[in-house]
Amino acid sequence: MDDFIFGTLATDELRQAHVRSFQAGITHNHARRPRTPKPGQEITLELSVGPAHLKDRAWVYWTTDGSDPQGQSGNALRGQVIAMEESSMEWNTSLWGYVRHFRAVLPGQARGTLVRYCISAGSEMDEEVFADNHSMYAFTVGELAQPEWVEEAVVYHIFVDRFYPGHSESWNNPAGPAGFYGGTLRGISDKLDYISDLGANALWLSPIFPSPSHHGYDSTDIFEIEPRLGTKQDFRMLLDKAHARGIRVFLDFVPSHWSFHHPTFQQAIRDQTGPYVDWYFFSHWPDEYETFFGVRELPQINLRNIAARAHILKAIEHWLEIGVDGFRIDYAIGPTPDFWGDFRKTISSKNPDCWTFGEVVDPPDRQVAFEGLLDGCLDFLLLEAFRQTFAYGRWEANRFFDFLDRHEKFFPRSFSRPSFLDNHDMNRFLWAAGGEKRRLMLAALCQFTLAGTPVVYYGTEVGLSQERDIRQDGYGFPEEARLPMPWEQDQDGELLSFYRELIKLRKSEKALRSGTRQALHSNVDTLAFKRSWGDEEITSVLNISKEPQRVYLEGPWYESLLATDQACKVEFNGKGVNIDLPAISGVILKEA
Amino acid sequence: MDDFIFGTLATDELRQAHVRSFQAGITHNHARRPRTPKPGQEITLELSVGPAHLKDRAWVYWTTDGSDPQGQSGNALRGQVIAMEESSMEWNTSLWGYVRHFRAVLPGQARGTLVRYCISAGSEMDEEVFADNHSMYAFTVGELAQPEWVEEAVVYHIFVDRFYPGHSESWNNPAGPAGFYGGTLRGISDKLDYISDLGANALWLSPIFPSPSHHGYDSTDIFEIEPRLGTKQDFRMLLDKAHARGIRVFLDFVPSHWSFHHPTFQQAIRDQTGPYVDWYFFSHWPDEYETFFGVRELPQINLRNIAARAHILKAIEHWLEIGVDGFRIDYAIGPTPDFWGDFRKTISSKNPDCWTFGEVVDPPDRQVAFEGLLDGCLDFLLLEAFRQTFAYGRWEANRFFDFLDRHEKFFPRSFSRPSFLDNHDMNRFLWAAGGEKRRLMLAALCQFTLAGTPVVYYGTEVGLSQERDIRQDGYGFPEEARLPMPWEQDQDGELLSFYRELIKLRKSEKALRSGTRQALHSNVDTLAFKRSWGDEEITSVLNISKEPQRVYLEGPWYESLLATDQACKVEFNGKGVNIDLPAISGVILKEA
Repeated sequence: MDDFIFGTLATDELRQAHVRSFQAGITHNHARRPRTPKPGQEITLELSVGPAHLKDRAWVYWTTDGSDPQGQSGNALRGQVIAMEESSMEWNTSLWGYVRHFRAVLPGQARGTLVRYCISAGSEMDEEVFADNHSMYAFTVGELAQPEWVEEAVVYHIFVDRFYPGHSESWNNPAGPAGFYGGTLRGISDKLDYISDLGANALWLSPIFPSPSHHGYDSTDIFEIEPRLGTKQDFRMLLDKAHARGIRVFLDFVPSHWSFHHPTFQQAIRDQTGPYVDWYFFSHWPDEYETFFGVRELPQINLRNIAARAHILKAIEHWLEIGVDGFRIDYAIGPTPDFWGDFRKTISSKNPDCWTFGEVVDPPDRQVAFEGLLDGCLDFLLLEAFRQTFAYGRWEANRFFDFLDRHEKFFPRSFSRPSFLDNHDMNRFLWAAGGEKRRLMLAALCQFTLAGTPVVYYGTEVGLSQERDIRQDGYGFPEEARLPMPWEQDQDGELLSFYRELIKLRKSEKALRSGTRQALHSNVDTLAFKRSWGDEEITSVLNISKEPQRVYLEGPWYESLLATDQACKVEFNGKGVNIDLPAISGVILKEA
Repeated sequence: MDDFIFGTLATDELRQAHVRSFQAGITHNHARRPRTPKPGQEITLELSVGPAHLKDRAWVYWTTDGSDPQGQSGNALRGQVIAMEESSMEWNTSLWGYVRHFRAVLPGQARGTLVRYCISAGSEMDEEVFADNHSMYAFTVGELAQPEWVEEAVVYHIFVDRFYPGHSESWNNPAGPAGFYGGTLRGISDKLDYISDLGANALWLSPIFPSPSHHGYDSTDIFEIEPRLGTKQDFRMLLDKAHARGIRVFLDFVPSHWSFHHPTFQQAIRDQTGPYVDWYFFSHWPDEYETFFGVRELPQINLRNIAARAHILKAIEHWLEIGVDGFRIDYAIGPTPDFWGDFRKTISSKNPDCWTFGEVVDPPDRQVAFEGLLDGCLDFLLLEAFRQTFAYGRWEANRFFDFLDRHEKFFPRSFSRPSFLDNHDMNRFLWAAGGEKRRLMLAALCQFTLAGTPVVYYGTEVGLSQERDIRQDGYGFPEEARLPMPWEQDQDGELLSFYRELIKLRKSEKALRSGTRQALHSNVDTLAFKRSWGDEEITSVLNISKEPQRVYLEGPWYESLLATDQACKVEFNGKGVNIDLPAISGVILKEA
């Protein structure tokens, strides 16, 4: 069975249709270079026009004063206009027609300038149409890179209701897996020693705002704390205690939708003349409106509405003032593109050291479009590669190796790509691996010796798995991947020790956090790569096959720092090193 | 019903699969810039490597002495080698993976140098693979443009067995439409007055070599004349008489396959150790071999075999020596790419004034890859646009107008794109137009006022149509589009007069043959464009709708040179001109 990873492009059919609709449309789709322009640097914008659109000219309408540009047929009604030039044309066999490409260059701007723009195409014979369904775009001038501390981080991802109810509390016994188990913010505070001992120095909390659900992705008030989880005081205490231990705290934030029960939505469906109707996208008031994936309980928010946008940004400011260190942005492709210009401006002005990373299940070309707007995106492609290679054994080592090379070349180095093996929306890695712990250990060894900031989903480090596939009851019931955290004797001590060692090693070796990567060896069964920082070199050698394998590396004597299997052997033969690896095992080596 | 145009990409499904296989493969596919390098000019070659190919390096092996380059893992075994550089990488959502792009620059070469090359990709972990299924490429240094006279040409396309049996002969009465009707070369000679009166100054003859079929695309000897059609003496006489009238003669030549009965094939299947086995592609001798579209009677020729190639090129030389002025190349995508390097060298050395144009039903990106190898390709895309717009009424005028703009921009001006409305492999235009003569006249008016050298398929100018759809009996029976030419009172005199006027006009107005084109006007129903050469300007105004339409053009008084309908009216109102066009009609105007 395929590994199901939630998203809009989960099947081949959806992917083909997606590609075609972009190629056939009047499409800008963030084609902006550079995405992080320096002050004074020109910015090139591109547009493509599919065969069925009878357009032979195009314009960029833009402002630098924060207001929305407006224009018509090449005349600016607010802000400025630049006529695009037709730059090239290509034949598209799939669409059986020619696709036109246009280009315009915006002049360089001062640091901090918020440029807002939209693009249209027209012709004398046909009406003007705005690109990407009338999308508005925005970006801020000045380079953006992830905060320096991000390279040092090891993130622990907590699903709050399922982590710990607190020292004097016990788990609830809900009727079903979607019920409330009783995890709390105090419970997390009580377990900070555990988290510290694991070695994590950052927490990503699932949504903590008031919400009718166990997961919280449908909040009713983005300024408050869900009472089941605790009080604002509890949250401040958690922040203080975590910070005292050098642990940062990130919130899971959902800008694109919230609960049907949110007071503004309730007012919007009661009063058609009120101010909140425009906070949403009603196609037929009050019954039909845009939602997150067709879920009526999750109305989509109109972030082009100035008041709605201000509301969201005020909440961001609020939590930054309280002391939050970062945001994981849920469904980051949801909001209008220009929202991110304001979002970044808010973050930069309140706390430039705040880390923002998006949940973008769409492929790398869509992820990298967030460069300059967010610090980065969760690395879903690497997740897929980890799972295919290490959990399912479907990819050969060669293929994983080649993927890594391409994947790392594709993204700018400054773009965060936090790595993970599983999360709350998919089968846990250990379940996907048929319960084979050695597969999880090998994947973790690989994860922690690559550059991306590693994220560990609560429980994965102690062998928490599940009882059945998340799709057992059709999609929409991933609760199986959110079972309560086991504690004490219910934990797999061997796995936990391994994770502690792994994290310790990452924290002690700068090469693993910040080093460049060099491919050393790969075949169908095995692969080896080296991370280097100055003179420091750390080498990972992995055997993904079900048979023992020997890998030979030229060079000096290597010392084994950590192995997934005691039977891994490293022997110097005078010229190089023979590394004997049992089935599905790996080792981390250092030049001795 | 869709208009069926024969080819490998006739359906959407085939097109999708084609695109994917190119993107997924190790693909060069003629990506060479410039395609007609000047002496000393560097040549850039590109390669893409799909996600499933674990290759991270690539090489170009090449020679300049006419021999085949050979190499392995970046080492040249014959000729030279250049390591390609990885130039970019893109994410491909359709393939769900990264595609690598490589680039190499070949140094400039002296005029006339025949460069032969092949490209491979490899890696330390995986074997070397040659691009495009081990294709060999070739090109000759020095610019190539169509002969100057081509712009002056009007081509008459004759299907020999169906044109005329000769003054003292009568048609046969074959049992079925695939039988022999009895057209001959002498018959054509006898009708040169008719062709001259029409105004054509070039003939394209369907294959005249010995063959068991009525169409001749399955020849058994490419040096001789099919006895049914005449003798070599007859052919020489036709050439002499045609040339005396200023009419050039082109042969239809098939380099990629011939008849199962060709003596070399018969010998190949009799003697496995003989020299002719390698002239073909046997996958399992003697039963299984590559063919043209799976037709066992049409074995594909291995043009990588030196003797087979020399045989074909010798035939080209032979017909050039006899006095042939050009070749229409059947199924030009069939032969190995490097064949065209030698082909062009042969043409250039024997008769640089010879015109060569390919039958490439594949889309424009494939056609344009013949730049520098052939003078051009039959314009199948324009054919499709003509038929959709004028025969079927499915395209609005806007769409045709926009297509023209894109299509003309896509091709280099020096690349021949002979235009046509129908040929021997598809329903005749008049049949496709439901017998509506005004649709044919309007399409012809458009054809003859665009730049491409016009081709008229025999009989189209006198209303020859057919009795049933060519697909009536499934594909493979296009004989319906090859009915015998009507003569004398069986001809549509009105249509013939119109064609004569049209050709006369094209020949008298340099702007129509060589002018630039400028779009003047278009809407859903009507369009107008102007061709300009120096001060000469000729304007075409067309109404494709079923209702009368008025088109207003600014500027001076226009005089009507030719109209498809007597009711077309042109009136100067003091400032501009109102052109009143009945349903489905058009007019050619000149500034008075």
